[in-house]
Amino acid sequence: MKTRLLTVLLIVLTVLMPTNVFAQQQVSDVVIKYQHNLMPVPSFVEFYDGKVPITDSLKVVASKYTDARLQSGIDRFLKRLQGRTGLTFAQASAPEGTSMVEVRCAKPGEAIPALDEDESYELDIGLSKVLLAAPTVVGALRGLETVLQLLTSNRDGYYFPAAKVKDQPRFRWRGLLIDIGRHYEPPEVLKRNLDAMAAVKLNVFHWHLTEDQGFRIESKKFPKLHQMGSDGLFYTQEQAKEIIEYARQRGIRVVPEFDIPGHSTSWLVGHPELGSAPGPYTIERHAGIFEPALDPTRDEVYKFLDTFLGEMATLFPDAYMHIGGDENEGKQWDRNPTIQAFMKEKGIPNNHALQAYFNQRLLKILEKHKKKMIGWDEILQPELPKNAVIHSWRGTAALADAARKGYDGILSNGYYIDLSYPTSQHYVVDPIPADTTLTLEEQKHILGGEATMWGEYVGPETIDSRIWPRTAAIAERLWSPQTTTDVDDMYRRLTVVSVQLEELGLTHERNVDVLLRRLTNSKDIAPLKLLASLVEPVKEYRRGDQRPSTMLSPLTGFVDAVRPDSEVARRLRKTVDEFLSDAPRFQLHATDLERTFKEWRDNQLALAAVVDRSPALHEVKPLATDVRNLSEAGLEALELIRSRQTPAPDWLQAKSTLLTEATKPKGAVELVVVTSVRQLVTAAAELPQLKTMSTAEWKKHVSTLASGSAR
Amino acid sequence: MKTRLLTVLLIVLTVLMPTNVFAQQQVSDVVIKYQHNLMPVPSFVEFYDGKVPITDSLKVVASKYTDARLQSGIDRFLKRLQGRTGLTFAQASAPEGTSMVEVRCAKPGEAIPALDEDESYELDIGLSKVLLAAPTVVGALRGLETVLQLLTSNRDGYYFPAAKVKDQPRFRWRGLLIDIGRHYEPPEVLKRNLDAMAAVKLNVFHWHLTEDQGFRIESKKFPKLHQMGSDGLFYTQEQAKEIIEYARQRGIRVVPEFDIPGHSTSWLVGHPELGSAPGPYTIERHAGIFEPALDPTRDEVYKFLDTFLGEMATLFPDAYMHIGGDENEGKQWDRNPTIQAFMKEKGIPNNHALQAYFNQRLLKILEKHKKKMIGWDEILQPELPKNAVIHSWRGTAALADAARKGYDGILSNGYYIDLSYPTSQHYVVDPIPADTTLTLEEQKHILGGEATMWGEYVGPETIDSRIWPRTAAIAERLWSPQTTTDVDDMYRRLTVVSVQLEELGLTHERNVDVLLRRLTNSKDIAPLKLLASLVEPVKEYRRGDQRPSTMLSPLTGFVDAVRPDSEVARRLRKTVDEFLSDAPRFQLHATDLERTFKEWRDNQLALAAVVDRSPALHEVKPLATDVRNLSEAGLEALELIRSRQTPAPDWLQAKSTLLTEATKPKGAVELVVVTSVRQLVTAAAELPQLKTMSTAEWKKHVSTLASGSAR
Repeated sequence: MKTRLLTVLLIVLTVLMPTNVFAQQQVSDVVIKYQHNLMPVPSFVEFYDGKVPITDSLKVVASKYTDARLQSGIDRFLKRLQGRTGLTFAQASAPEGTSMVEVRCAKPGEAIPALDEDESYELDIGLSKVLLAAPTVVGALRGLETVLQLLTSNRDGYYFPAAKVKDQPRFRWRGLLIDIGRHYEPPEVLKRNLDAMAAVKLNVFHWHLTEDQGFRIESKKFPKLHQMGSDGLFYTQEQAKEIIEYARQRGIRVVPEFDIPGHSTSWLVGHPELGSAPGPYTIERHAGIFEPALDPTRDEVYKFLDTFLGEMATLFPDAYMHIGGDENEGKQWDRNPTIQAFMKEKGIPNNHALQAYFNQRLLKILEKHKKKMIGWDEILQPELPKNAVIHSWRGTAALADAARKGYDGILSNGYYIDLSYPTSQHYVVDPIPADTTLTLEEQKHILGGEATMWGEYVGPETIDSRIWPRTAAIAERLWSPQTTTDVDDMYRRLTVVSVQLEELGLTHERNVDVLLRRLTNSKDIAPLKLLASLVEPVKEYRRGDQRPSTMLSPLTGFVDAVRPDSEVARRLRKTVDEFLSDAPRFQLHATDLERTFKEWRDNQLALAAVVDRSPALHEVKPLATDVRNLSEAGLEALELIRSRQTPAPDWLQAKSTLLTEATKPKGAVELVVVTSVRQLVTAAAELPQLKTMSTAEWKKHVSTLASGSAR
Repeated sequence: MKTRLLTVLLIVLTVLMPTNVFAQQQVSDVVIKYQHNLMPVPSFVEFYDGKVPITDSLKVVASKYTDARLQSGIDRFLKRLQGRTGLTFAQASAPEGTSMVEVRCAKPGEAIPALDEDESYELDIGLSKVLLAAPTVVGALRGLETVLQLLTSNRDGYYFPAAKVKDQPRFRWRGLLIDIGRHYEPPEVLKRNLDAMAAVKLNVFHWHLTEDQGFRIESKKFPKLHQMGSDGLFYTQEQAKEIIEYARQRGIRVVPEFDIPGHSTSWLVGHPELGSAPGPYTIERHAGIFEPALDPTRDEVYKFLDTFLGEMATLFPDAYMHIGGDENEGKQWDRNPTIQAFMKEKGIPNNHALQAYFNQRLLKILEKHKKKMIGWDEILQPELPKNAVIHSWRGTAALADAARKGYDGILSNGYYIDLSYPTSQHYVVDPIPADTTLTLEEQKHILGGEATMWGEYVGPETIDSRIWPRTAAIAERLWSPQTTTDVDDMYRRLTVVSVQLEELGLTHERNVDVLLRRLTNSKDIAPLKLLASLVEPVKEYRRGDQRPSTMLSPLTGFVDAVRPDSEVARRLRKTVDEFLSDAPRFQLHATDLERTFKEWRDNQLALAAVVDRSPALHEVKPLATDVRNLSEAGLEALELIRSRQTPAPDWLQAKSTLLTEATKPKGAVELVVVTSVRQLVTAAAELPQLKTMSTAEWKKHVSTLASGSAR
């Protein structure tokens, strides 16, 4: 009897086990501390003793539902794993009983990636098996990315650490907008960015397809749109289909944007009859806000839009269509007597109301073509139906307002990666801030967010370095639990992710040197590279003032080579803080700091030579002087602090003047290490006060020493 | 009367001048010495005092014949010039009277790029104008590349130096073979390589489209060929057309190769009925020579080839079609009784004769489709008609033989860039060696040559670094006068060209760091990069023995990151030579050498740490030991030489043993700096002899000191 019972039990267990992901594979169930590199951080993750070793007999098996999309995902997974480990997986011919990854996927999920796709997955990594369970193929794809990020090595080889993961996204809409209107990007650039999006679990590619500066999608109904509005730089419908399918393979939606009624100069080059002024129009070559706008008063315009958007509704399968709607100042409307007469006749009081009228009619067209409308903040007018989605460049307050009124919304304010702010600044922006006053029901209207890569100053060589790796941190904000907020740890993981993204063909790391070599026409770029590590592009939209250019200008200057979020500056801030906090000894990092400043100082001669023979670098000449001043100020401050000397009475003033000069951008880049040097200089000047303070008081004081500087 | 004559003369001169390229624009006609970076070197070039300054008002004007192809070429020229200078050229709106490039092109030239295209051009660069005259659009395109290479700068800005150039190619067939059979390369990889080919004036893209390992062109007649023979990695006919047009735009012919009757495994996967054994066949995954071959005895096979090659003849407009014909050992033929019976019946004595029979029938098919046949050495059989072209992997002697028999031929022996030899070795190979015994008439049969990028060990990430920059030197050999043979100067110019090629998207420089970062999963690659600079991939086909792999293996190892032709090794050879020749003082470069060896030695700890935590790098661990031994040997030898000490009796033996170990490849890479260290070590041991020699004798002796080493 007993044996029988046992047998029955075993059978029951065997039947049950495959569906129980938490099958206790690990040697012990004692949770261990483990520093992982996962980004985004999963909603639940625990590590245990044990590992799944990776050898060339590793197998990946889809044990339940599978299809071509999952198999392609597995193939890509294997290829990347091979690339990292140097192993060739035998797969089919591998012997039984060795390590394996079992992908247990329940269902295909949505045929067309959709907002309500179930992206969850679970992982159980034990002694010889990675068990990945997911209700949908997209969930399985998300899980495979996590497995890849878990790849670890020691001197014995590569392995996956024993772990359990239960994961699903916090927000359903996690997007990246790429503006290929201002500067065109070839399909391969978009494809590698889609791969990167999938790697960090983003799920919406917002394709900003039309702008004043370019109409970039083929229209078979109105070929003059792309033929006359794009300089020949547009996507054929075949190419668009290929991109959409490429995205679908990776569980990514493609939301097209046709920005109207403003931002529409390129439409009017071939179709001036749609405009609110007679034209003729030419493709806009500058950055800015321009007057051309569609005429919202004429039935022909709506007929045209009906036909065109109908064509696009067939091409783009996503349920949503973005109609832009931003930054139309209505100046053409003001000057057009027919439009003014129309407004008077209809009782339309102002341009806002006229745009609302336009949106009303547009919405009907979209509804006819079975698309939900999404548009920028401006579309939120009293009459807007509740099924429209608000895309907020204004901020979380505007978004919360919309949510209270019952509108779905997504956030982009705070995620403008074209503004060259450091990752940390984007990372703290939450679509639903911790102190939200929205009810839980209202919070459901906040669908997520989108990083926006506006295209004024990016081309195929530089766009990756503006998107990555910073967007990975935004992806984490949109996927991971709200409590994932450790900035230092984010940066640690971001460095690893950045290297891993390169395997997808991204050029954010490699093209820095390429551009520096081109600027110097030489392979000897070390002095220039050191300078590049100390600067960042100017923030916001100041580049245009500093360095006037058009859409036809080359994107090959020093400002294009340097990247946002200087790692050197970040480390220096930490080092200086710790050095100054080491009062009254001032020993911690002292040698490091001295070496750093000497390296900057000693770089000057070589740098001057490089800059001198490269006219394209003349604009950054003054930076060399600034760096010399900085390094000298830093060295003097160090010496004063360490020798406890009081500086000469005018020393602080003299150094401050130089430092203030050094904070001014040159050639559209700015030295971002000034703050830390200023902190040292101020500390040196204030050191006598330390005698009157407790150590604790001084440590508190240290953090205030950098105030008054640009950063 | 006198005034009148002068006027007439002036009128005559004015009328004549526009057609006279040598219009004496420069301030003085005194030829000056000028170190240019042109590659290939033009057949005639002289420099003068004076320059054409480049500002944003530079204009490029096509003053005579122009068409879409020339305009595109000018647009690309302007874009690259903008990219290098950072300037935005106003073009249309530029004021009159400023600098300009006038392109005076006479005729369109061949509609389809052809062997007899006139590629000549002339340049007259004077005070404010670059005058480029060419009989054809292709000539003008070649000239524009020269103008770009003439771009120079000083602290005042960018300019073109005053110069006169008269240029045309020495050989008409200057090719690059890319084998995408073994490893597929996406269209964008081919496109950037076509751009690079145009930059160094190559004019034939030899597209090796079929191999045992892959059938990579869509056939609408026999879709099973690409569907079953390519793993889905093939070019659609649309893509092929796009590549052909892309090449045509750059004056490059596309010669397709369908390698038969051997090298045809991939054909037989979908069409086993064409084979000489019943099959079934699977795509070959290994490198080597394989047995499958088409059955040359059956009419159905020729019918199939007629249809297929007819389809391809329409797709590829070039006058030539390459049918391979190499490396068929006929083992399947030997074993097939029907084939044996056929041979007996027809009186075909052996497999060579059988292949000749096959070629005869193939030739008729090609003739029917209006294509000239080109094939590897093997096709040269007694019955071969004189209009076939011999492509020689055997060498200049075989080529000369063929020429004597009246066959046109092209050389690839000596240009096998997949063998990882240094540039200098390819550079000295001349399709018509200086000591040729061919008559001038016979020499005309030598059409030129082709660099061959065989695909066993290259993928999209690494192929550029195997082709470039070395192929630029081969391009020079095929274009420039035979007397252009200065190796040092070639290397000087090659370094500049290498950087310039990057603007076309080539990854030969940038991807080194990418692969090293992937291997270490980190951005801290300095110690590994130092090691990489001291090694090269093993030569010839020894990689396969050292590091067994298949076509499905990753190409991400250390051997893939490192490149042929180590610059460090080349410089070290020179430095050591000069140091040892500086007898008896031994001061020249002594400090440099000491610093170099200390840098290697001091790299060991950091290197060991990196290698230790990266299992994919374990294969190169022994190299770290070798480098330590090398650096110590070098330092000891330096010290002995400088202090005039005689080493201990067993010192030379001990060091030699270590050096011999260090010459052995590990992980399919070899330390190429050993020779120079051996030279130092031997010199240190032989120093006592110096006392018995004259300085002149010693200097002569120095060059022999490296003998006995691998390199």
